[in-house]
Amino acid sequence: METDAVSALAGRAAELLSACRSTSTDPADRSAAATDRSGFVPASLPDGVVYAESVDDVVQAVRLAASHGVPLVPRGAGTGLAAASSAGAGEVVLDLSRMNRILDLDPVEQIAVVEPGVLNAELNAAAAGHGLFYAPDPASTAICSIGGNIATNAGGMRCAKYGVTRESVLGLRVVLADGRELRTGRRTIKGVTGYDLTALMIGSEGALGVVVEATLRLRPAPVTTATAAAFFPDVAAAAAAASAVIAARIQPSLLELVDGPTLEAIDLALGTDYRRRGGAFLLGQTDGFGAQAEMDVLAGAVEPFATEVLRADDPVAAEALLAARREAIPSLEKLGRVSIGDIGVPRGRLAEAVTGLQEISERTGVRIFTIAHAADGNLHPMIVVRPGESVTEGPAKTALGEMFHLAKRLGGTLTGEHGVGLLKRDWLRDELGDVSLDVQHAIRRALDPQAILNPGKAI
Amino acid sequence: METDAVSALAGRAAELLSACRSTSTDPADRSAAATDRSGFVPASLPDGVVYAESVDDVVQAVRLAASHGVPLVPRGAGTGLAAASSAGAGEVVLDLSRMNRILDLDPVEQIAVVEPGVLNAELNAAAAGHGLFYAPDPASTAICSIGGNIATNAGGMRCAKYGVTRESVLGLRVVLADGRELRTGRRTIKGVTGYDLTALMIGSEGALGVVVEATLRLRPAPVTTATAAAFFPDVAAAAAAASAVIAARIQPSLLELVDGPTLEAIDLALGTDYRRRGGAFLLGQTDGFGAQAEMDVLAGAVEPFATEVLRADDPVAAEALLAARREAIPSLEKLGRVSIGDIGVPRGRLAEAVTGLQEISERTGVRIFTIAHAADGNLHPMIVVRPGESVTEGPAKTALGEMFHLAKRLGGTLTGEHGVGLLKRDWLRDELGDVSLDVQHAIRRALDPQAILNPGKAI
Repeated sequence: METDAVSALAGRAAELLSACRSTSTDPADRSAAATDRSGFVPASLPDGVVYAESVDDVVQAVRLAASHGVPLVPRGAGTGLAAASSAGAGEVVLDLSRMNRILDLDPVEQIAVVEPGVLNAELNAAAAGHGLFYAPDPASTAICSIGGNIATNAGGMRCAKYGVTRESVLGLRVVLADGRELRTGRRTIKGVTGYDLTALMIGSEGALGVVVEATLRLRPAPVTTATAAAFFPDVAAAAAAASAVIAARIQPSLLELVDGPTLEAIDLALGTDYRRRGGAFLLGQTDGFGAQAEMDVLAGAVEPFATEVLRADDPVAAEALLAARREAIPSLEKLGRVSIGDIGVPRGRLAEAVTGLQEISERTGVRIFTIAHAADGNLHPMIVVRPGESVTEGPAKTALGEMFHLAKRLGGTLTGEHGVGLLKRDWLRDELGDVSLDVQHAIRRALDPQAILNPGKAI
Repeated sequence: METDAVSALAGRAAELLSACRSTSTDPADRSAAATDRSGFVPASLPDGVVYAESVDDVVQAVRLAASHGVPLVPRGAGTGLAAASSAGAGEVVLDLSRMNRILDLDPVEQIAVVEPGVLNAELNAAAAGHGLFYAPDPASTAICSIGGNIATNAGGMRCAKYGVTRESVLGLRVVLADGRELRTGRRTIKGVTGYDLTALMIGSEGALGVVVEATLRLRPAPVTTATAAAFFPDVAAAAAAASAVIAARIQPSLLELVDGPTLEAIDLALGTDYRRRGGAFLLGQTDGFGAQAEMDVLAGAVEPFATEVLRADDPVAAEALLAARREAIPSLEKLGRVSIGDIGVPRGRLAEAVTGLQEISERTGVRIFTIAHAADGNLHPMIVVRPGESVTEGPAKTALGEMFHLAKRLGGTLTGEHGVGLLKRDWLRDELGDVSLDVQHAIRRALDPQAILNPGKAI
């Protein structure tokens, strides 16, 4: 942009900020709102932050952005992993974290209506009081917002059985790029009036509208849960065991794989001895009225590949087995800066995927630690670099690109649940093709012709 | 339209038809392709029918339609219930029923790739050979096509547990209104690259593109299924029992309600004695490793409302209980012309819905028979008129309108799984509102600016 254009934009952004009720141009606040947990470092700071406390605040900010031609970057809790809420000079951040009320929780209909800033774990705590739960459970559940979950179509461990965010959202209230309010979906379980605008909004990274309210489906807490874990000689054996679980035609409620290097990192952080016990770890749960019988089948499928199979007979023992998986990311974060990859592959090709990731690590010299939502074929290869090194440039970027090509070669995808943001745009056309991208841009133009909302993200 | 314009359009349609490989302008073929099973009678016949046998045939037909400005009406098996594939003068039908190959069935990945003309029951038969099933099961399973299921986001009995068509479609190959080929989605379970064009296409009634191939998710056949049925003094008691099942926090694989008048019609057709045994009937199934234990809870929830509870101990007994539900529509069709309504309400308000339907019947003098997918709150109130009477005009239309307003008053929807087509457009704006309809038209214009594909349907 020319210098004149930049300063004109800065002037218009300043006008927008001065017209809104609760804002900040403090460098500390702008810095806090400039990026997410992807490791992406923006080259500049956004011009300011609008803190929305109501739908009217959002409408006002969006209308001002449209009339002033100022790009607006919606932001939830900032826990994204694809730089989808990163913002820079000339942009204003629309922070939705103060819209954090649970507006309704109907235990009979098993429905909650929430504002976008409600944290995933807060909703789950409220639902648990009624014997219900909200299925999507990203690893960041304690700190991520429902609005962000919707913007990225977030998954988690439980989507093995219960589906991703899309399967738990019945309806949305959205502020469009021109400030109009759109309601999508409904409170009923089924409904087919008109196009599926709810699904269109989910995963669109805030580029088609700002979600200001969501009607969510809750589910009954399972009557029984069974848990088992197993150690394997190596990660390929663990991946083969996971594929065998799928081939055994059961429905685990979670099936999580942790590779040897990650076990080592957990041992280092926690003083455990996982790595000594095996070169990879697989954790399975089943739930429902037949959880124990289903777990028998799961354990039977895993056994031929395993060196050790552990069954948990009570919730405390189960929680101990879950700890290894839960501590994976925090343990890696003690080793350096972490960039969490997110490829998806067909479920029968997990072993090829983990072997391919090892080869990429050897070829690029980048350290890769892998965990996976194995029942969905969704792998999180995590690159760890030393402080000061970039996770989005240089060898790390080369490795990210190779991961994508590996996924593509196996019939998979660039991103299973984290989204595209700024981080993965380079490979998007290669996966989607020209026609798909054209259609997506046409839809974007139809809804936001001025490109006001989160420009440059998602597509 | 002016007479000159009509004849010019007819001339262009004739050109299109003469350029395509397999077509018909025979009045019998045009009549057969003019409407669906909704009871809607078009005022005129389409100009002709193109029978596509390949993707290339579809591309050619769509390109010619675009270049000649001739509206094209995609058609599957013609079993729709909302007049979404009805066609009249100046329109050409694009019949996809000959594209009926199962291209791939991967029992390891539990995925099928099919052409749109494959019948729902054919796919299920093929999947059953591998111990798998395709979840969406409209009552018309034996005669409806997967393409039509996708165009309407079809449901059925099993979606109580397994979701509607949207939850079973991983990816699509679509011919756009300009003849370009679009691929959406993927073969992996999860994936979030770009906007969810797969969901956008599902339920769009052929107005955003012509589905020429679908990648579908199959599921393992349940290891055990448990079945029970119960009779009740009246339909309100049966509806209250269904709500009690939901409140009991279990997950039936199906939960079907049949009201007294429908039982009477079944008795008349089959010589059974259902109506003598009760004023309404509820059928429940549970499946999976804990099916029997879950059924105990279901039966316990139903019992306080019922006059008689029957458990089926083997598949033959279960099939006998299912017969009452399966025979409902065929039995009504012996009484006259049937128009199948499709409202959805919150699951706790089923009793109010069935009571409201009885009041509508009394007020309008129209005979209404009700069955319901009770676990989803999806009711099918069926209007039966004498031969020669219209099911889409006069008192029947008044009753349809009142059904919609009843659903709306209860916080529900105009259509749970059949779609809008031509039949329900009058009430669409009332449910969706101006902004939603504007957005939908904007998307439609972005994808099909000439309004070539199925104009006037869905939105």
